[in-house]
Amino acid sequence: MVRKLKTAVSGLGRMGARHALNFLNRTPRSELVAAFTPDPNELAWAKIHLEPSGVTLYTDYDEMLKHPGLEAVVVATVTTAHAEQAIKAIAADKHVLCEKPLSTSVEVSQSVVDAANRKPHLKVMCGFSRRFDASYRDAFERLDSGAIGRPSVFRSQTCDKLDPSGFFVEYAQFSGGIFVDCNIHDIDLSLWYFGQDSIVKSVVAMGITAVQPELRKYNDVDNGVGVVEFWGGKIAYFYSSRMMAAGQHDMSELIGTEGKVVINANPQSSLVEMHEAGGIRREIPPNYYGRFEYAFVTEANEFTAACLDNTKLPFKLSGAVQAVKIGCALQESLNTGKKIWFDETGRRVEKASL
Amino acid sequence: MVRKLKTAVSGLGRMGARHALNFLNRTPRSELVAAFTPDPNELAWAKIHLEPSGVTLYTDYDEMLKHPGLEAVVVATVTTAHAEQAIKAIAADKHVLCEKPLSTSVEVSQSVVDAANRKPHLKVMCGFSRRFDASYRDAFERLDSGAIGRPSVFRSQTCDKLDPSGFFVEYAQFSGGIFVDCNIHDIDLSLWYFGQDSIVKSVVAMGITAVQPELRKYNDVDNGVGVVEFWGGKIAYFYSSRMMAAGQHDMSELIGTEGKVVINANPQSSLVEMHEAGGIRREIPPNYYGRFEYAFVTEANEFTAACLDNTKLPFKLSGAVQAVKIGCALQESLNTGKKIWFDETGRRVEKASL
Amino acid sequence: MVRKLKTAVSGLGRMGARHALNFLNRTPRSELVAAFTPDPNELAWAKIHLEPSGVTLYTDYDEMLKHPGLEAVVVATVTTAHAEQAIKAIAADKHVLCEKPLSTSVEVSQSVVDAANRKPHLKVMCGFSRRFDASYRDAFERLDSGAIGRPSVFRSQTCDKLDPSGFFVEYAQFSGGIFVDCNIHDIDLSLWYFGQDSIVKSVVAMGITAVQPELRKYNDVDNGVGVVEFWGGKIAYFYSSRMMAAGQHDMSELIGTEGKVVINANPQSSLVEMHEAGGIRREIPPNYYGRFEYAFVTEANEFTAACLDNTKLPFKLSGAVQAVKIGCALQESLNTGKKIWFDETGRRVEKASL
Amino acid sequence: MVRKLKTAVSGLGRMGARHALNFLNRTPRSELVAAFTPDPNELAWAKIHLEPSGVTLYTDYDEMLKHPGLEAVVVATVTTAHAEQAIKAIAADKHVLCEKPLSTSVEVSQSVVDAANRKPHLKVMCGFSRRFDASYRDAFERLDSGAIGRPSVFRSQTCDKLDPSGFFVEYAQFSGGIFVDCNIHDIDLSLWYFGQDSIVKSVVAMGITAVQPELRKYNDVDNGVGVVEFWGGKIAYFYSSRMMAAGQHDMSELIGTEGKVVINANPQSSLVEMHEAGGIRREIPPNYYGRFEYAFVTEANEFTAACLDNTKLPFKLSGAVQAVKIGCALQESLNTGKKIWFDETGRRVEKASL
Repeated sequence: MVRKLKTAVSGLGRMGARHALNFLNRTPRSELVAAFTPDPNELAWAKIHLEPSGVTLYTDYDEMLKHPGLEAVVVATVTTAHAEQAIKAIAADKHVLCEKPLSTSVEVSQSVVDAANRKPHLKVMCGFSRRFDASYRDAFERLDSGAIGRPSVFRSQTCDKLDPSGFFVEYAQFSGGIFVDCNIHDIDLSLWYFGQDSIVKSVVAMGITAVQPELRKYNDVDNGVGVVEFWGGKIAYFYSSRMMAAGQHDMSELIGTEGKVVINANPQSSLVEMHEAGGIRREIPPNYYGRFEYAFVTEANEFTAACLDNTKLPFKLSGAVQAVKIGCALQESLNTGKKIWFDETGRRVEKASL
Repeated sequence: MVRKLKTAVSGLGRMGARHALNFLNRTPRSELVAAFTPDPNELAWAKIHLEPSGVTLYTDYDEMLKHPGLEAVVVATVTTAHAEQAIKAIAADKHVLCEKPLSTSVEVSQSVVDAANRKPHLKVMCGFSRRFDASYRDAFERLDSGAIGRPSVFRSQTCDKLDPSGFFVEYAQFSGGIFVDCNIHDIDLSLWYFGQDSIVKSVVAMGITAVQPELRKYNDVDNGVGVVEFWGGKIAYFYSSRMMAAGQHDMSELIGTEGKVVINANPQSSLVEMHEAGGIRREIPPNYYGRFEYAFVTEANEFTAACLDNTKLPFKLSGAVQAVKIGCALQESLNTGKKIWFDETGRRVEKASL
Repeated sequence: MVRKLKTAVSGLGRMGARHALNFLNRTPRSELVAAFTPDPNELAWAKIHLEPSGVTLYTDYDEMLKHPGLEAVVVATVTTAHAEQAIKAIAADKHVLCEKPLSTSVEVSQSVVDAANRKPHLKVMCGFSRRFDASYRDAFERLDSGAIGRPSVFRSQTCDKLDPSGFFVEYAQFSGGIFVDCNIHDIDLSLWYFGQDSIVKSVVAMGITAVQPELRKYNDVDNGVGVVEFWGGKIAYFYSSRMMAAGQHDMSELIGTEGKVVINANPQSSLVEMHEAGGIRREIPPNYYGRFEYAFVTEANEFTAACLDNTKLPFKLSGAVQAVKIGCALQESLNTGKKIWFDETGRRVEKASL
Repeated sequence: MVRKLKTAVSGLGRMGARHALNFLNRTPRSELVAAFTPDPNELAWAKIHLEPSGVTLYTDYDEMLKHPGLEAVVVATVTTAHAEQAIKAIAADKHVLCEKPLSTSVEVSQSVVDAANRKPHLKVMCGFSRRFDASYRDAFERLDSGAIGRPSVFRSQTCDKLDPSGFFVEYAQFSGGIFVDCNIHDIDLSLWYFGQDSIVKSVVAMGITAVQPELRKYNDVDNGVGVVEFWGGKIAYFYSSRMMAAGQHDMSELIGTEGKVVINANPQSSLVEMHEAGGIRREIPPNYYGRFEYAFVTEANEFTAACLDNTKLPFKLSGAVQAVKIGCALQESLNTGKKIWFDETGRRVEKASL
């Protein structure tokens, strides 16, 4: 009979619950055996949706790690717990899929990489979901085949639907800021598309609070624009927003010397268009899961396959530290107003030569 | 100095007024010298918009034909007067641009062609405006260059915005019916794209009155579907409607053995898109002039150039009779429920061999 | 523990193999226990992809029906075997998901419905995959909520990518013809959107063989246009083709008295657009599975749920007979050149009153 | 008879020739009476295209200003001559339409404004063509009516088709650099949409030479990214490029607190789409005139009308100086690597308080 990977999910909040269901129902080679949450509401949900399928529920993370036969852990708790839980799981000899970012601190992020490096037989991956999205992959294959010449300028945005509930204000307290929380995906894409070994040369960021001025108390904004220059003549520029009226609109374009590849310039939630009195209208996904649902399913399946078959993960963990480093620098530039420079080894300097 | 064509416009209704302004202001090689209308409101309009620019106004068509130096007449009156006025102008040795259709009768249409044939030095053209539209021309050039292989199936629609005023009911009394009034353009396009010498093999049409049941008193419908088979293995199918909510949507697609060319699958009135609470929305033209304004300007300029330079018109007048013939057959099929057959010479028969 | 539906798949050809994998891996509440195929190549494939997961393979359909505990059968063999296998499975007291069409004969199709009616405790469904597609469902909900007023005109097409291998010629021998094989989906959609109890009034069809003249030996064509009039003032018109250059393009639009809903006017296989020397280009799915993959997954899951929970199937089996009836009438009209009429009870007549 | 504005065009290069033909043929209330060029090739062209229509040709600009009855001058020479010619024309009491930018120097630009201010009866306009484009105007009306809430973030790009001839390298010598030459339009749009009295707070720019490294000798780049922060919580960010493979792609989007308006996200040169073996493809305009031809025609007509009727020009001349000021600051930031700050009166400072 087919062998299945015994998996646990830590955290059953918005994203954790989705991971749990994906590893339970949509990852044929995975067997979800355990789940951890300290939250009573999440636990109540799990009793209905997970327990009847044979998933053991834990309210203690360390206990969950001792679940008999457990092989892999999906860390999907709050960002501040990512690194600690990942390191503990590695110490317990489990494969780890950790939600992004590893941490809002470069040093803490690096400590996860260090822990993983000490156990090379384990698969440790940061969950950059767009790396598993069919369209982003299609784009990568095209540029990789030379279809657009030499990649030179990258534009990418992560734009959430306006949520007037104030959720994002409280969330900002621990998110690391809009560049670390939202644009981390776009930063990661720039490293993927420009080459994982690209060295940042300078960053600069600006931002405003157009709809939620209280964000300033956590040094955050609801609209941010950042520019990242890489050594070797490459530029990435980013936009993030918390106030889209129509819905989630994450899009990217990579401009090469011989062409351009664009991902999701025309967002839509289905193939339906309405012709009505106001014109022609189409709807767009209300949130990132509406856009990336199948990317998360693919992520679950590919992580599982890499663990079972001991094959290479699709990308290296160390890149996640680079992304956090750039995100933190953008956040710092936003708050100091200063442009930040790095030398050709990626070390921070006062001012690089142009 | 540059010589200009002395032009007159007959009829200053919706379309006539536009022709007059186009020949006055947007046709550099034309000099609009005269205009005719029997209608007091139209005359009042002309006193403001045409007379100050030196245009002589007439309330008698025959008098207008005698305007000193007049060289060309644009016939834009009601359909029922098209043929008579065109023939009179030809008799008076004027070039003629006649609005479509020449007539709602095949025989009367043919009489215009006969009149024109007797004066080969005159330029006589039927105003099939889509022939002058940049997109339809672009499509023709592509198919003509072989880009889609052998043209085989043509789909085309003429769909008006819903006008709840009841205008279309009264209009139906003289329009010849929806296939002769609206789809005449699509029929003409099928002849252009399949080849002007294409011979109709069979036609069949169906229709409904979804919003204006009173149309039945004039044997008309507000939504019609027609199929035209041509000898030699070609099919055109048409849709016309008077009840579009969003605006005018005229579109066409020509399917060849090696590709397809589509014109206006995604209508829009400008390059603006709105991202708003309901999704992403764009508006579309409210009427055919919103879609084809520049085609009419091109038509005016090219007709003028052909008259002045004695060059070939872009298409033959005789095709206009073929279009009326097919339109009338569709209208008859709609009303009798019968499929109508023609033999390989285009003569009506009881039933052609398949 | 969660109970799972013990399922078998009959036929492991192109579509059967996909059904088998879907019921094995992507239908959490199903347990694929058996599969039948008489074909050695398909059997070899199944030994690799199904047997290791515990699926018992059969080369005798009747034997498979006796598999211990078997509860449901997916019939995905050649069209000519659909009805017989479905009836046998019903007789053996199994739920049945039968690929479309039930048969290319109205009478034989009806016999499946009769068999199902005798066992009301069984779930018997015809696999009209578009009924499970998110976009078609979204469209239905909109019209059902009154967003477009009264549905009046429906246009729908099923257009395959050109396959120069000659596959479609041999396939035509048993497919029932292009209207029964391709447009059956569009016909079913017209019944869904206009109301399942819509009564056909007349049908007419025309077709050509633009790329594969040999199709005529099986009374088939590679491009067909059909019009279906329903009693009560509704018209559906269809197009099917086997010669699309770009890929699969199935699209539909439903025009109501107050708006229009369009499904897939702008096909695409991913969210990627290429800006390159020739302009802006996007690719489209190469075949119907590229377009409808997730509809099939939903179909498997919903069929399974209906069987396990004894809930209503999303649509009635009897509609499948209506679809075959209309498809066969279109095919007959194509081949006789005649328009075919039905009275208000749906009975064939010489000529209905208009 | 209708009175016409006696107009002259200075410079008959690429853009001057188009202005001349527009004022000759497509501006009914203008009479093109004179044209100036020192270039023999341009003069030869003018002898064919302008002289036969009664246009007097001059090889001396000062002589042309003395043309009897001349009322207005269109300055369309090289950028370095714009200001001097404009000031001379003002001194000669002529209305002036001056191509953008007034100058590549803020001070020189201001001197044109000063000259105009001394003659308030004259109409002096800087030719920001996008201000006359139907789509940009439609967008302005929407935001002006409150459709998107408070405008907050503006993104805009001016991207030329790759021209491998090396033209842009020589052109860079006098153009003022990519931000002054290309993004000047986008900067002007930001002032239009955010409010003409918006005060710049900081600017920063980065750029690369991806295809034409020789641009560096003129301190220019072929791809530039700039961010402009305005006092009051508004951000504009710009992209310009000289290496688009598909053609000209100028686009803008304005994000407000309640919605977004996008202009030209989906460029196209006609309404035609090709379905072909590689997918679905549409072409885009090869250059800015392909995109903005009708904007230039509108510009000519509205400028003419304002002169004849002594009505207000659609926008003030002084804004053109603001645009040059921001463009020059971006260009300086590009070349020094520094972020540049301004205080709340728009005065340059070392570092503004955040």
